[in-house]
Amino acid sequence: MSDTHSLDALIAALRRLPGVGQKSASRMAYHLLQNDREGAQLLSRALHEASASMRHCERCHTFTQQAVCATCLDPSRDLSRLCVVETPADQAALERTAAYKGLYFVLLGRISPLDGIGPQDIGIDLLFKRACDGVVQEVILATNFTAEGEATAHVVSEGLKSRGLKVTRLARGVPVGSELEYVDLGTIAHALADRR
Amino acid sequence: MSDTHSLDALIAALRRLPGVGQKSASRMAYHLLQNDREGAQLLSRALHEASASMRHCERCHTFTQQAVCATCLDPSRDLSRLCVVETPADQAALERTAAYKGLYFVLLGRISPLDGIGPQDIGIDLLFKRACDGVVQEVILATNFTAEGEATAHVVSEGLKSRGLKVTRLARGVPVGSELEYVDLGTIAHALADRR
Repeated sequence: MSDTHSLDALIAALRRLPGVGQKSASRMAYHLLQNDREGAQLLSRALHEASASMRHCERCHTFTQQAVCATCLDPSRDLSRLCVVETPADQAALERTAAYKGLYFVLLGRISPLDGIGPQDIGIDLLFKRACDGVVQEVILATNFTAEGEATAHVVSEGLKSRGLKVTRLARGVPVGSELEYVDLGTIAHALADRR
Repeated sequence: MSDTHSLDALIAALRRLPGVGQKSASRMAYHLLQNDREGAQLLSRALHEASASMRHCERCHTFTQQAVCATCLDPSRDLSRLCVVETPADQAALERTAAYKGLYFVLLGRISPLDGIGPQDIGIDLLFKRACDGVVQEVILATNFTAEGEATAHVVSEGLKSRGLKVTRLARGVPVGSELEYVDLGTIAHALADRR
């Protein structure tokens, strides 16, 4: 066994982080061991604690350390609106806008026929059951604007409309701060069609 | 306390990695919790073990889990040549070229007057003592080709020459301003062969 096997193991483990290759992993490992051992121990504990304690909210499936997340339990939220997102990270982005006061449902996936992921694989029936509780009036689809996200939105939309619910989708349009000249044509076309 | 405090703590801890900002840290944390909890536990253990077990070789000061590193103990190495590098990562880059069979001395720093780091702060006397053991014939300076690395090489060179040792520097095949750790191996091998 090499006399640096725990360093090699650390570099290999760091490569499991998204966007980190051999060189970045090596740089991170040497940096931590040489300049920031306290940071290494801190990160070690944080990884252990987070992966041991974070679970999914029973109601909306986002990350939480309780049975039901703080958003679902918040009495000031508007119970008649339900926003459907693909991941907890998407939900966090929406929360940071402070522009939405309803509840969420996190799919933890998206429909992707090319990868063999169908409606049942993302537990779409749970969403239908949640949305048909008699309190929810409007379901806002906030899946990503990718091919898979659009396919997911379409399937969810059809299912909810057939159950008599009002379904809306985040507006497609020109991003804030952008110049028309550099915006892609599909986006401008959508912004034109959806003008108000 | 928030119901996601261990997630927030994980994101904060990931930001201590070099080159990782708020967005990357957030992406890494969500990825690990959502898709790779095994990877999170693996990384947690690897960080703990590496930061607990990696120490510095008594002779050359590189990273090792023993008292003296495998390179210093290797009977096939050429004891008459000593290569001076700034960090263990630099030594690892030189080792990967397989073009050098002598021993090393890792400074674990560099002279940087602007940061108030002088010759004594990087333990230059230990190097002088090591190089003057009567066996070392040639000292090869492989500090980085940055302003600080060149300053370090200059000070080390003056000190060793005044003690009657032969001092060489990696050839300037290495691009000026770059750091050894990230230079392609062929360039390092050429620079070794062309040392003067």
